[in-house]
Amino acid sequence: MPKTSPTHPRRLEDVPEWDFETDVAIVGFGGAGSCAAIEAADAGAEVIVFEVASASGGSTALSSAEIYMGGSGGTRVQRACGYDDSTKNMFDYLMAAQGELADEERIRLYCEGSLDHFQWLVDLGVPYKDSELKARAIVALSDDGLLYTGNEKAWPFRDIATPIPRGHNLQVEGDNGGPLFTQILTRQVETRGIRVEYDARALTLVTNDAGEVHGLVVRIDGDEKLVRARRGVVLCAGGFVMNKTMLEHFAPETARIAHPIGNPFDDGAGIRMGFGAGGALLHMNQCFLTIPFYPPSVHTYGILVNAQGQRFINEDVYHARVAAHAQRQVGEGIYLIIGEKRWKQPNMLGGEIVGTGDTIEELAEDAGLPVENLSHTLRAYNENAARGEDPLFHKSSDWLEPIEKTFAAVDITPGRHGNYVAFTLGGLSTRPTGEVLRLDGESVPGLYAAGRTTCGLPRRAEGYASGLSVGDVTFFGRLAGRQAAARA
Amino acid sequence: MPKTSPTHPRRLEDVPEWDFETDVAIVGFGGAGSCAAIEAADAGAEVIVFEVASASGGSTALSSAEIYMGGSGGTRVQRACGYDDSTKNMFDYLMAAQGELADEERIRLYCEGSLDHFQWLVDLGVPYKDSELKARAIVALSDDGLLYTGNEKAWPFRDIATPIPRGHNLQVEGDNGGPLFTQILTRQVETRGIRVEYDARALTLVTNDAGEVHGLVVRIDGDEKLVRARRGVVLCAGGFVMNKTMLEHFAPETARIAHPIGNPFDDGAGIRMGFGAGGALLHMNQCFLTIPFYPPSVHTYGILVNAQGQRFINEDVYHARVAAHAQRQVGEGIYLIIGEKRWKQPNMLGGEIVGTGDTIEELAEDAGLPVENLSHTLRAYNENAARGEDPLFHKSSDWLEPIEKTFAAVDITPGRHGNYVAFTLGGLSTRPTGEVLRLDGESVPGLYAAGRTTCGLPRRAEGYASGLSVGDVTFFGRLAGRQAAARA
Repeated sequence: MPKTSPTHPRRLEDVPEWDFETDVAIVGFGGAGSCAAIEAADAGAEVIVFEVASASGGSTALSSAEIYMGGSGGTRVQRACGYDDSTKNMFDYLMAAQGELADEERIRLYCEGSLDHFQWLVDLGVPYKDSELKARAIVALSDDGLLYTGNEKAWPFRDIATPIPRGHNLQVEGDNGGPLFTQILTRQVETRGIRVEYDARALTLVTNDAGEVHGLVVRIDGDEKLVRARRGVVLCAGGFVMNKTMLEHFAPETARIAHPIGNPFDDGAGIRMGFGAGGALLHMNQCFLTIPFYPPSVHTYGILVNAQGQRFINEDVYHARVAAHAQRQVGEGIYLIIGEKRWKQPNMLGGEIVGTGDTIEELAEDAGLPVENLSHTLRAYNENAARGEDPLFHKSSDWLEPIEKTFAAVDITPGRHGNYVAFTLGGLSTRPTGEVLRLDGESVPGLYAAGRTTCGLPRRAEGYASGLSVGDVTFFGRLAGRQAAARA
Repeated sequence: MPKTSPTHPRRLEDVPEWDFETDVAIVGFGGAGSCAAIEAADAGAEVIVFEVASASGGSTALSSAEIYMGGSGGTRVQRACGYDDSTKNMFDYLMAAQGELADEERIRLYCEGSLDHFQWLVDLGVPYKDSELKARAIVALSDDGLLYTGNEKAWPFRDIATPIPRGHNLQVEGDNGGPLFTQILTRQVETRGIRVEYDARALTLVTNDAGEVHGLVVRIDGDEKLVRARRGVVLCAGGFVMNKTMLEHFAPETARIAHPIGNPFDDGAGIRMGFGAGGALLHMNQCFLTIPFYPPSVHTYGILVNAQGQRFINEDVYHARVAAHAQRQVGEGIYLIIGEKRWKQPNMLGGEIVGTGDTIEELAEDAGLPVENLSHTLRAYNENAARGEDPLFHKSSDWLEPIEKTFAAVDITPGRHGNYVAFTLGGLSTRPTGEVLRLDGESVPGLYAAGRTTCGLPRRAEGYASGLSVGDVTFFGRLAGRQAAARA
């Protein structure tokens, strides 16, 4: 009996007979897997989807399913809301946001194909309302179709690309985008007659001696089943944030401070299978990490300081950028300093008020912060804010006003207070079209991947925007499905 | 003709006959490889070393060959210099220095075995003089045996473990430790009759269908030769800093700003071979990174500020810790602010004076720094320094004095000015005893690795100390050699 573990592929010559035969086998029926399945089927391939859970959706179903889209003059929603978004503008923004980690080819494809992707989703039945949510929010609780979800309006990005909102939110009240999105995609898969095996755990891939992938081994009802995939296997099995061993191994800095978000099957199985078949892993330390210090958006009127009582970021950036920089400060201590007028009970912050005062000095003493330095920070901030200026971090004048007594310091030190949450951004190294790559840049024949099983377009919290992950998994899931279907 | 690339191991069944047969084959004759060879031979194994260059030494020969050692009451040199170093103290320091990335088992073994390692080196003929170099230096240019080479005396480490110097420098004038160290190790290998093949490039490993490593393929004089290793292959082929493609792929943030240091064969070949045989890679983004803003040590009297004119680190930390934090600051700009009295022509800094002034305001305006904030930073620093205090970053009072006119701002912004240099710290995932690990934590039978081909003890610039890499490669090189020799 051959050993079965994700990192040990089954040898083709040890396969006595196949239990399933298809052109394209897809592992995982979340956002990436459903899009891969639809495209592969539409390209004429026979497709079977194997999903470990009893239902579709994966982590996409748990998300708001916002999708980051734009360029090419703007989506229908952007244009209706008065925005003229160019592909270059979107590209420039994403390149700057991803910084040194940017995958230029992936970003270019995404920006150039974004408008088509929007139309494809609309044609599938995904509803977007032609209206904009103007509030600074993490997710839209209204049914508005468009909102700013990243750092577009914040320094330094607003000087690099014209700020345009690109977060597309489904036309549904409350934070219910994920379930609706999943329902629509699932129905589209069913409509096409694509076979879906639920409660089917993929165990490992089947490879021949040359390293080509010929299929996979799944467990259904306690029995191993052998699946032949004539054209290819597409791994869309999510990330690894729920695998504590892997997370502590590869991303220990984040593991220490953050709660994982995702579904319980984000256990890295797809990554391990791809690795077992020769795939390289990329940026396994990188995570989406956030501290939801807003909403309420009025907290943006406050300032964030470190243990030295110094600001370290413009507070109007996206929450994940705040978290990424909070994680990097020397000394233990991150605080939101805010005036009574602007403090509202936070939704998800989990911070603790550790000091208050009618003067800055009182506040600093009460919170145990360096009195002189915090005092300078706040006085200088207030003087400049009164003039609508922030010479240090260039926070937008929309959020500048002097902070007034009673002052409070809210402790959101990573690992001590504050609900830091994370999911993984590292994974299999792939071409944008889904081919899983070895360390030498060659592809593993017959193996494709998309979604959080791969290191995709969003590669760092610092430059994240809501909608980039569901955008990435659906867009590149489609490409991977198409690529697998086209293989001879 | 089977394909030959590091990531495609040769199949055992495709080997018609062996050109070399040995118990243990070692790839690379640098610090790790020589120690592995000596230990394997001393354990009774037949050993052949394959070295791609025409001479021994690898990057260890190019280094100062300082080794970080201590614990167990102290090495002979430490005791002679009046230091009583406990294993717990050394362990506590290294655990804090490596932070979340610390490998506790590796650090524990290293600290517990450090005194024996010192004695082993001395017995091989490595000379250490019982004297301490008291100056703050990056490398000892004197023949003194002991110096502080890390962050031991700096906050916060001095509060976590009692500061003790642990950098052991060879008894040789000038920066000539590496060549002498290499000469001694090479002679020890030769004395044992260990066969060394120079100009022999390892191409790939030989594995059977179960994934066990049985040998390797090397190229000598243009011909492929097949090497059978009955007990195991030990990969000691250096890191990947000289492989531009790999560096930009895995460590793009460092690739952008730093010059690589090492030998031209630090091309990742060992890492690629280990990966090809199923080994996982760990922390591939992590690099040693430094900005040598001292010597001269008097620059420590200056302060380092970011684009906001704010300090971000205690300036008495190890140079690599400065570089790691300089890399993380928001906005473009890192400056050494220093008074005329303490400015000396730097050795390796590569910074540029971009502003001077008789007042702080003049300086800030001349350098284009935020006037108000730099002015506060410097005034507050000076007032506190006059009292021997640094309430923000707890710089040691040894380096505290008011900074006086004429002031200068030296631009050392990463990517703009300053000689930032780097080498890689990520590599194959291994047990401390050298077994190369798959992603599931199982070992690859017959495959061992040590040195910068692995992710070893030093895992981040932030907690680096000179002597940790040569310490790691020699200590764990020995363990890997012993482990391979002991395999049935």
